[in-house]
Amino acid sequence: MTARSPGRRPGGPDTRGEILRAARESFAGKGFAATSIRGVARDAGVDAALVHHYFGGKDELFVEAMALPIDPRQVAATILDGPVDDLGRRIVTVFLGVWESPDGQQRMKALLRSMVSSDQVAQLMREGLTRMVIAPVSKALDVPDARLRVSLVASQLVGLALTRYVLELDPITTEPAAELVDRIAPALQHYLTG
Amino acid sequence: MTARSPGRRPGGPDTRGEILRAARESFAGKGFAATSIRGVARDAGVDAALVHHYFGGKDELFVEAMALPIDPRQVAATILDGPVDDLGRRIVTVFLGVWESPDGQQRMKALLRSMVSSDQVAQLMREGLTRMVIAPVSKALDVPDARLRVSLVASQLVGLALTRYVLELDPITTEPAAELVDRIAPALQHYLTG
Repeated sequence: MTARSPGRRPGGPDTRGEILRAARESFAGKGFAATSIRGVARDAGVDAALVHHYFGGKDELFVEAMALPIDPRQVAATILDGPVDDLGRRIVTVFLGVWESPDGQQRMKALLRSMVSSDQVAQLMREGLTRMVIAPVSKALDVPDARLRVSLVASQLVGLALTRYVLELDPITTEPAAELVDRIAPALQHYLTG
Repeated sequence: MTARSPGRRPGGPDTRGEILRAARESFAGKGFAATSIRGVARDAGVDAALVHHYFGGKDELFVEAMALPIDPRQVAATILDGPVDDLGRRIVTVFLGVWESPDGQQRMKALLRSMVSSDQVAQLMREGLTRMVIAPVSKALDVPDARLRVSLVASQLVGLALTRYVLELDPITTEPAAELVDRIAPALQHYLTG
């Protein structure tokens, strides 16, 4: 074996993995805003063009590095596709849809636990989700206090996930998802447009 | 120094501390329901009457052992003291009151983090809070689905605490508590009586 070259290497079989490893380190250490494609490429010892080739941009790199079960921009698009007076129902439906799938639930639980135990992960997820979901949904509401309204919705969703899947508080845990949607949608709608 | 006697000892300067230590171990290991004053007394090497003398009953022992900033039964009494159509506002006011005090916030944050990271602590708090707060408030509502209604309120409160104090999601974190009460009270009231 030869010593690893400090220069840039072309794409090899594990290049994608090395980029993800460098991205995870950078996101965790510096946060979302201070992480750049160029910096991740340098840390992984590859050309920035290769990172773009594999992942597109920083948002996609974030989604892959954090092992999110669904792309938050896709979530935002689904939520925003319909009338504003049905927004609360679409939000809780999409949210529970991700959490009710076995793979999604496992990943989201791990992520939620990491956010609670690590300030770094909390900050990172805050930045990423604010940028990709909370900001576009707030913009669509188009009222001065939109950010607060959408954040109140987020607080209910986080509490729902925590009580249903982590703390397992009955009957939140045992209730069918459809019943929870019926109960929670009006509360979210009140936050958004009430 | 003599070897510690296996028999029962009278109350000494650290007896209270030893009872609390034994109680914490029992609550954490066996849960709330399976913990008894008699068992805690035996583990602490004292007479059961002494545990009653220091702490009253199992509920009080739980409150002290978990270092809760406020007695949940007092919380339930405050919440229930007033008309049902203002219940949502009283609940979120009392809840934020506990969390807004510096000492309360520190203890509640530690407790919330423990609940998320430990299934044992989660189960214990679930049992204790269900018995001391959720059950009496549900009873006061006096409708068949009262437990689900009150649990939905709990899910919003847990989410509020998590986003405001642990995840620090703006503007939930920066908003004055009174403004959050005004926003959240109607949603809670909807869960309870809507």
